[in-house]
Amino acid sequence: MDLLLNHRTIRKYQLAPVADKVLTNILECGIRASNTGNMQLYSIVVTRDTEKKDMLSPFHFNQPMIKNAPVILTICYDINRFSNWCSLNHTKTDFSNLLWLLTGTIDASILTQNICIAAESKGLGICYLGTILYNAPEISKVLNLPFGVIPVTSITLGYPDQNPPQTDRLPLDAVVHFEEYKDYSEERIQSVYRKKEELDSSKQFVAENSMENLAQVYAEVRYKSEDNLYFSKKLKKMLLDQGFVFD
Amino acid sequence: MDLLLNHRTIRKYQLAPVADKVLTNILECGIRASNTGNMQLYSIVVTRDTEKKDMLSPFHFNQPMIKNAPVILTICYDINRFSNWCSLNHTKTDFSNLLWLLTGTIDASILTQNICIAAESKGLGICYLGTILYNAPEISKVLNLPFGVIPVTSITLGYPDQNPPQTDRLPLDAVVHFEEYKDYSEERIQSVYRKKEELDSSKQFVAENSMENLAQVYAEVRYKSEDNLYFSKKLKKMLLDQGFVFD
Repeated sequence: MDLLLNHRTIRKYQLAPVADKVLTNILECGIRASNTGNMQLYSIVVTRDTEKKDMLSPFHFNQPMIKNAPVILTICYDINRFSNWCSLNHTKTDFSNLLWLLTGTIDASILTQNICIAAESKGLGICYLGTILYNAPEISKVLNLPFGVIPVTSITLGYPDQNPPQTDRLPLDAVVHFEEYKDYSEERIQSVYRKKEELDSSKQFVAENSMENLAQVYAEVRYKSEDNLYFSKKLKKMLLDQGFVFD
Repeated sequence: MDLLLNHRTIRKYQLAPVADKVLTNILECGIRASNTGNMQLYSIVVTRDTEKKDMLSPFHFNQPMIKNAPVILTICYDINRFSNWCSLNHTKTDFSNLLWLLTGTIDASILTQNICIAAESKGLGICYLGTILYNAPEISKVLNLPFGVIPVTSITLGYPDQNPPQTDRLPLDAVVHFEEYKDYSEERIQSVYRKKEELDSSKQFVAENSMENLAQVYAEVRYKSEDNLYFSKKLKKMLLDQGFVFD
């Protein structure tokens, strides 16, 4: 539990590589995670080659840890392998829809988090890359992903070369509800977010972006409506091209 | 790592309750997981009341662990709390689309897996309930979820009253690719799935369902096309009713 409670995202890594044996052990921990029907509808692509990192980098918006980390893992929802097995057995599956996309995303994420915890237990540090969903079509090309394999999440992995302070969290009771969801009054919302708003880092974030408050930085700078819709449409187009049905 | 490698899904629980302090510790481990932009777009609903369990049970297809487990956790993608905060700060977000549904699903899943690992480190057992996505609208009503709160995953939690054998996994190298995805030849698919097909439990599964092979049990009995499409449509309708845009 201490390991979980002490988690920090690591964005700067030592040059030291991750030994094959360590990587294998970590990945073994990943696939022991629960998964739907034990069908293992996922694949993990390991990137260690400098050339591949250089190719991935722009699609992760040139975040420096892409080139700095010894290992990048791209975790995918994979119905290709299972479908091939079904074909050989004279049957076919129908997992290219919204329900199964979410199911596969959950399974891929659970697997990834096991990998992260195993990695941290070995002294490694990790960073999640949410950017994967923004440029999934381009990343798929770099990694040669076939029809039916959708990148879901991605992490960088390596020995930490920094020791950052822990980021804040909302009070636990702000995100936990007992028996029924109790909706938030204005006063409750204000009290829940107050500590976050008053952090020096938040104030700096607001000032740097010339905004009036922290919520505006999130809504109008960092995760702008037009960007959200642009990248969401792009993701949907990719899924349609991959045979997904959303009706 | 031993904890992760020894994971087993637990479906039978002792009567012993989970102490408040233990539950709090576990949930604290959950919210320390990485999350997108540190916005914590999730909520956790704790079910312990017998009456609520009885109400949830049919929507989880009466799986016995719902009534048998002392605690059920329903983990949601929550844009209600964050949107309320934005409103109070004269701005608004746009997270009701496919991109953010997947992003929120990843964050909720990572949180859930941290909870599972913390629970197991305390001697508890867990079981994921994939059924949550099948009956999300009905479960939302039972838990009084407001507009903008989507149940994503669910687990049961309690002290184990069984010690099941570990389930099989495909060989690690069947799901891991180095640098690029190497697509599978027929021979490779056959070799990858052979061990699974030859398990006594698989043979029994095939015989019980009067099928020719294991793939057919998955594709034609357990996860039938018509069921997948029915529940996927139902889920999409719920999301549209909740203001999601899929264009």
